[in-house]
Amino acid sequence: MTTRIPAAVPAVVNIAAALARFSDHWAQRRIAGINDYDVKVAKIQGEFVWHTHDDTDEFMLVISGRLTVRFREGDVVLDPGEFVVVPRGVEHCTAAAEETSILLLEPAGVVNTGDAGGELTKAVRELEPS
Amino acid sequence: MTTRIPAAVPAVVNIAAALARFSDHWAQRRIAGINDYDVKVAKIQGEFVWHTHDDTDEFMLVISGRLTVRFREGDVVLDPGEFVVVPRGVEHCTAAAEETSILLLEPAGVVNTGDAGGELTKAVRELEPS
Repeated sequence: MTTRIPAAVPAVVNIAAALARFSDHWAQRRIAGINDYDVKVAKIQGEFVWHTHDDTDEFMLVISGRLTVRFREGDVVLDPGEFVVVPRGVEHCTAAAEETSILLLEPAGVVNTGDAGGELTKAVRELEPS
Repeated sequence: MTTRIPAAVPAVVNIAAALARFSDHWAQRRIAGINDYDVKVAKIQGEFVWHTHDDTDEFMLVISGRLTVRFREGDVVLDPGEFVVVPRGVEHCTAAAEETSILLLEPAGVVNTGDAGGELTKAVRELEPS
């Protein structure tokens, strides 16, 4: 006789609740995985560093606040419920006048500052437990 | 002399506006790509078919309404701003009592009905132009 271990029912993730568990800026938290991709959230305010991801596109969805993504050819401004996909190889810089919360999706292991490096480089962390 | 063609500034996608462009149920629209993944939206109401994706996880984020995802071990219920990742190989069935809008993310080419097939099988379409 074999014993079948039932698969656990997958967890529901509430994005706002995940964001409520931390307050620091420019520090991505991983909240889920899809195959070899990370679903992450971050709070940002001010301006990041210009950088490029040569090997991957980057998905950014605004949850609250207002996000500006600067490109060398012009800026885009995103309100909640809006997203942009930054194509691989395209230099960009994120900025937010007020505190803004975003959901990010990209392959696991992508460095937040891309090719730029510097003091804003931070490893992705797991979300703090509730 | 070489002519440099400026990269276009990436488009901002408003999820609600994308959803406003169609009204049929269980018919996914592709609204963006991230590497070899499709970002899709769909409107659903009623109950889908039980199925499994053997080769990929599936991300579902509720935009409006209320989504039930049934698993053999129990159901989860998601409100707007909540998501679930259905692990590969796990049988599931989506359902919604009222019309519900969701954002989906999975590799390009995934069949909506997975291993089940049947009359609900539909190719992903590009979103209708605005």
